[in-house]
Amino acid sequence: MTNSSLDVLKPVLSKHGLDAVAFVPGSNFRRIFRRDFHLMERPLVIIVPASGDPVAIVPNLEMASFSAIDFPGPVFDWRDETGYRDAFRQAAEALPHLAGSSRFGLEAQRMRVFEQMALGEVFPDVKFVDAHQAISSIRLIKTADEIALLKEAIRISEAALEATLQEVRVGQSETEIESILLRQLFAHGADGLSFEPIVAAGDNSAQPHAKARPDYHIKAGDSLLIDFGASWRGYNADITRTFFVQEVSEFDRAFYETVLAANERGKSVTKAGITASHVDDSVQKVLESSQFAQFARHKTGHGLGLDVHEAPQIMRGNNAALEPGMVFTVEPGLYRIGECGVRIEDDVVVTEDGIECLTNFPRELRLVGLG
Amino acid sequence: MTNSSLDVLKPVLSKHGLDAVAFVPGSNFRRIFRRDFHLMERPLVIIVPASGDPVAIVPNLEMASFSAIDFPGPVFDWRDETGYRDAFRQAAEALPHLAGSSRFGLEAQRMRVFEQMALGEVFPDVKFVDAHQAISSIRLIKTADEIALLKEAIRISEAALEATLQEVRVGQSETEIESILLRQLFAHGADGLSFEPIVAAGDNSAQPHAKARPDYHIKAGDSLLIDFGASWRGYNADITRTFFVQEVSEFDRAFYETVLAANERGKSVTKAGITASHVDDSVQKVLESSQFAQFARHKTGHGLGLDVHEAPQIMRGNNAALEPGMVFTVEPGLYRIGECGVRIEDDVVVTEDGIECLTNFPRELRLVGLG
Repeated sequence: MTNSSLDVLKPVLSKHGLDAVAFVPGSNFRRIFRRDFHLMERPLVIIVPASGDPVAIVPNLEMASFSAIDFPGPVFDWRDETGYRDAFRQAAEALPHLAGSSRFGLEAQRMRVFEQMALGEVFPDVKFVDAHQAISSIRLIKTADEIALLKEAIRISEAALEATLQEVRVGQSETEIESILLRQLFAHGADGLSFEPIVAAGDNSAQPHAKARPDYHIKAGDSLLIDFGASWRGYNADITRTFFVQEVSEFDRAFYETVLAANERGKSVTKAGITASHVDDSVQKVLESSQFAQFARHKTGHGLGLDVHEAPQIMRGNNAALEPGMVFTVEPGLYRIGECGVRIEDDVVVTEDGIECLTNFPRELRLVGLG
Repeated sequence: MTNSSLDVLKPVLSKHGLDAVAFVPGSNFRRIFRRDFHLMERPLVIIVPASGDPVAIVPNLEMASFSAIDFPGPVFDWRDETGYRDAFRQAAEALPHLAGSSRFGLEAQRMRVFEQMALGEVFPDVKFVDAHQAISSIRLIKTADEIALLKEAIRISEAALEATLQEVRVGQSETEIESILLRQLFAHGADGLSFEPIVAAGDNSAQPHAKARPDYHIKAGDSLLIDFGASWRGYNADITRTFFVQEVSEFDRAFYETVLAANERGKSVTKAGITASHVDDSVQKVLESSQFAQFARHKTGHGLGLDVHEAPQIMRGNNAALEPGMVFTVEPGLYRIGECGVRIEDDVVVTEDGIECLTNFPRELRLVGLG
């Protein structure tokens, strides 16, 4: 392998005993090459062997864009008219030392089955293994540049949320509020969405991945859960706040304060050196020791960056130690099915002795729709 | 299989000699169940055998949403703490007649490798085949409801484009114009983007999948290619228009008119009964018989609906006959690398004796940035 941005994969290959890895456009591709391509029906696959030059299989249509990457090995392009099989065959011929019983790591949560089938045809004797986490480990520690892009995504998101709340009125549907949020996100300069926002009121907020309903109109006393984020230059904000419409019962207030206490515990226990499992355990204990223990339903959070869901997973059983520069969400929630859900989600970066909380939107219980 | 929305897959299984198919959240899922789920790091897989009940493997977190589907077979849920392997094993045990040397069709352009690996572990002796097109064939013919949703996505897109052009000025960067377009799309009510828009001027427009540049400022005589679309209730518009900034050379005008003639040819030859290959051939011949033959680089178009790229592919070699209700793009282009690209893209639905063109934005050469 010549000296290139692909060198970052060398320790991954040796640490995991892999003879090669293959990946496709997406977050790892973008981190390595500083640009991205559409992941479509046309396969674009990079194969990086432990020794020797990498090879690329590229749709001819993308060759002009791909040439902007200073790719340090042979590139085999293919055209719609003739299909991609020959390009895969040429790639395999350029990597004869992989033909035998190699261990071939795939970006398995991103690569589609048809791309693996094409690889399997030309490497019939290799053993394919899931190397998604191994490859993605190159993105675990964020650089200062990446943190700055995340902060900008979050700044846009929070400004859009505040502007949205100013427009919320009793009687609006969930989809109306979602439309306001989308409009405000792009009016504030988002260049994309981290994901389709969740805008859910009342009983719908008790579904962690709810869809906005066109036929439910918010009314006094409803919870209003908004989980959303702008993306900025590929980096994704992921923020949840839960509000109440005009008024809140004492019971719901206690419910809310329990989630907030769990959120705060998660942020206060986090620092370099402790495990992801310990963070989740600390958060879950706040929920489990409350009167609402039965309504806890999911882990504390997930890593955040070029992917909205990436390592580290903040869950019991993940005994990996946190390191400075890791970014993840702290998003405890409680869900009374059929009634009310509350989730409060912040994005944090780990530091030597604690965290920097990247999200700043206030967390104290707020009533909306008062205008 | 009990009577259900999954019955639409029965003819697919028998036509392709499959003993089962498996699919994941996405467009086929949405067409079948009328709702969708996130496709994330948590596998949610539906297996439909040729005989007997289907089974579902569902993250516990999604069970409340999944219960809204009247799923006609056993559902095996799994939790983050324990992982998904047991659920796959239970699913296989519920389908004992598939254990042998079955042909198992996968939604291979959508399903990720790790999901297949999980299936492969519990069905070690089946033969997995790529059934993506077979499964997706259930979406080939659009219903009147689907056409109406596409029209709304297109109406929003075209209104946003006109509003964007009113704001275009000489000296703006490509990313500034992209920001205006995004803001206008959501101000006009888009509920999502079909894809990240392409806003490319001058030499950048000659790259079919260009990215907007923050450091290029449009100037008189530049082409300005905008390829974009709003999505509406899951349905995607996909429109390209190419403008010129303030002025256009006679050479570029001839270049533009050649593409427009190819676009018009594609629409005029299309009707039920002719092949996709014939449409592409007719379009390519307009380009190939012009003085600009060497600048043609891609097929005529692709199907459009819940996916931005789906069947039918409008390309030479696709000898499938077009049928009423199929929707696809007609998007010929010419690309002078380093100089100028022009693409003009319409969305059409096939009728018995021709097409209905769903896109209405004017196609005559237009100068922008005159304000």
